[in-house]
Amino acid sequence: MNYLNKENIEHIAVGASVLASGGGGDPHIGKLMALNALKQYGSITLLSVDELEPDALIVSTGTIGATMVSFEKLANGEESVTACRLIEKYLNRKISAIYPIEIGGINSLWPLVTAARLGVPLVDVDAMGRAFPEYHMTTLSLGTVSASPLAIVDAKLNISLIQTQDNHITEKLARSLCAEMGGTAFLAAYPISPNDAKKSGILGTLSFAQQIGETIERARNTKANIVQTLAALLRGFVLFHGKITKVDQRTVGGFTRGVVYFAGTDKDNGKTFEIFFQNEYLLARSAERTLCTTPDLITLLDEETGTPILTERLRYGIRVVVLGIPANEKWRTARGIEVAGPGYFNYGIDYIPLEERVTSSTRA
Amino acid sequence: MNYLNKENIEHIAVGASVLASGGGGDPHIGKLMALNALKQYGSITLLSVDELEPDALIVSTGTIGATMVSFEKLANGEESVTACRLIEKYLNRKISAIYPIEIGGINSLWPLVTAARLGVPLVDVDAMGRAFPEYHMTTLSLGTVSASPLAIVDAKLNISLIQTQDNHITEKLARSLCAEMGGTAFLAAYPISPNDAKKSGILGTLSFAQQIGETIERARNTKANIVQTLAALLRGFVLFHGKITKVDQRTVGGFTRGVVYFAGTDKDNGKTFEIFFQNEYLLARSAERTLCTTPDLITLLDEETGTPILTERLRYGIRVVVLGIPANEKWRTARGIEVAGPGYFNYGIDYIPLEERVTSSTRA
Repeated sequence: MNYLNKENIEHIAVGASVLASGGGGDPHIGKLMALNALKQYGSITLLSVDELEPDALIVSTGTIGATMVSFEKLANGEESVTACRLIEKYLNRKISAIYPIEIGGINSLWPLVTAARLGVPLVDVDAMGRAFPEYHMTTLSLGTVSASPLAIVDAKLNISLIQTQDNHITEKLARSLCAEMGGTAFLAAYPISPNDAKKSGILGTLSFAQQIGETIERARNTKANIVQTLAALLRGFVLFHGKITKVDQRTVGGFTRGVVYFAGTDKDNGKTFEIFFQNEYLLARSAERTLCTTPDLITLLDEETGTPILTERLRYGIRVVVLGIPANEKWRTARGIEVAGPGYFNYGIDYIPLEERVTSSTRA
Repeated sequence: MNYLNKENIEHIAVGASVLASGGGGDPHIGKLMALNALKQYGSITLLSVDELEPDALIVSTGTIGATMVSFEKLANGEESVTACRLIEKYLNRKISAIYPIEIGGINSLWPLVTAARLGVPLVDVDAMGRAFPEYHMTTLSLGTVSASPLAIVDAKLNISLIQTQDNHITEKLARSLCAEMGGTAFLAAYPISPNDAKKSGILGTLSFAQQIGETIERARNTKANIVQTLAALLRGFVLFHGKITKVDQRTVGGFTRGVVYFAGTDKDNGKTFEIFFQNEYLLARSAERTLCTTPDLITLLDEETGTPILTERLRYGIRVVVLGIPANEKWRTARGIEVAGPGYFNYGIDYIPLEERVTSSTRA
């Protein structure tokens, strides 16, 4: 059992944005809210799954909607609690603990607020091990865990509960509600047991995010190479160095979609790159070849500070280093690639593991 | 208390389509399902509001979606029961009786099926006194009764519950779910007390629909003039005689919208008319003047048989008599016209009561 302190929360915020593949929403607001909740409620507890009773009901929370919108529209703090209460009412059971639906930005931090407000611990697991644009894209789905009942609540406390037999349908219904609710909302979903979490969740991701945040801070303090340190910790690869030359993006069907264009810098001078995104970075390529695709992670780091650049923070002129990071093995199955691979997003290419792409590139 | 028999159900089906202003969905499927439910469950009871206990929970049911779609997509019969059970679970109260959300076609008949399956009576009240395309357009809304909790269920038994403080938001959320559910679904909504029904509902509309059906049958049998008989019963006006020359319609945002064009027949020979509709007929006009607008009713009757022609049955060449029927007085208030008058549908004209339009037309 861990009591999260101010520093832990700061580190989780940074680390979760590294693991977010560009999505999950701006962590800053989430961090402020989590720090505020810590002050107000005294403590936020992080448990490992093993510390829970076998019959515990654990529920994921997060925001849903285009991250550009959620960045501009502040939450009143009551939404996710209301969503959890609705799940409790529907299941007629008390929630024992909360977990983040994904690792990434605001969606790793809001669950801290929700847990504090509900007076329950946070569990060290999430449903993706990264962030993804749609909420049927979870390793829980791959393990046939139901996303529903799912509760969705907007800033005006309009609420809805969805129950289906198909997580993709649940996602589509929640997405259509979210669009009607003004483009962003809070949800509680995937009510599971500790055993479900162990079997089909991604364990230890909150503490891993914390470790990443700590590693970055230490590297900064010791003037070590942040990018190399992170690549080693994450078993990742530097895909390219570049400067943003153009960002094309728009909000479509509740998502922020677009392409960001880069001119190579440093040893990539003279080359061009582009990254396709839909809330998250999903495909990175140079003029010659594809470098990395979903479900593997694509992480943009500010070249100077090592700060992760999320899709909503893309701006002309920013100099970045782009990391490719291998996805959790659960995503690298046939079913995982079907649910969240490049084919799902209509990129017209097959999934090839990052390591193979990088190695063949090196060989070439 | 009335036990509805086969003839009563046939008469309600006909009468409800007269009051539907063209909407409410095809009554034929609803009638077959109601007759089948009568056979299977033995009896369907119709109560007046006064026969209920003061603390009774009564809930409206109906279909939602484009009527063209609902006509093609058969229900499996379990949806509306599931929707009612969800309301009961959410409110933690048993439903005492069921009422139709609107008077019109399938939406006046499905509640009979639901009541029979739930083993509860039907109440002789509805929320509109006619049919309207959107479900915040109820006299209950005018009386500040909440539409929520609203439960919506599709043919695959995907379910959702909505709770808001604003009936228009509830309608929009339900509509977006309906679109995602394939264009048509069942709902249970407006849980009310008998006192709410008396204060803000339209009382006696099911028995009135039955009376209209009986009147048409009697007129047919006695070779009386059906149109004149109906006009007298409904305090209505014959707006024109015509033959359909063109139907422009499409499904937009979950509604069937369009315009139907007529060439005048009989004493209207040589004139042209058009009726704008969105699930329901909303505005009738000749080349010179507006003849009738929502919330007043526009009813098309087959010239030969007196059968009401719903929007989904519009076909080239059909000869009709068009009746204008004054709306219930609850709709003719400033708030009623704001919610369901021609301004809401962007027709760019003010509401003028049907009687005034007809009288000024006669004077001209």
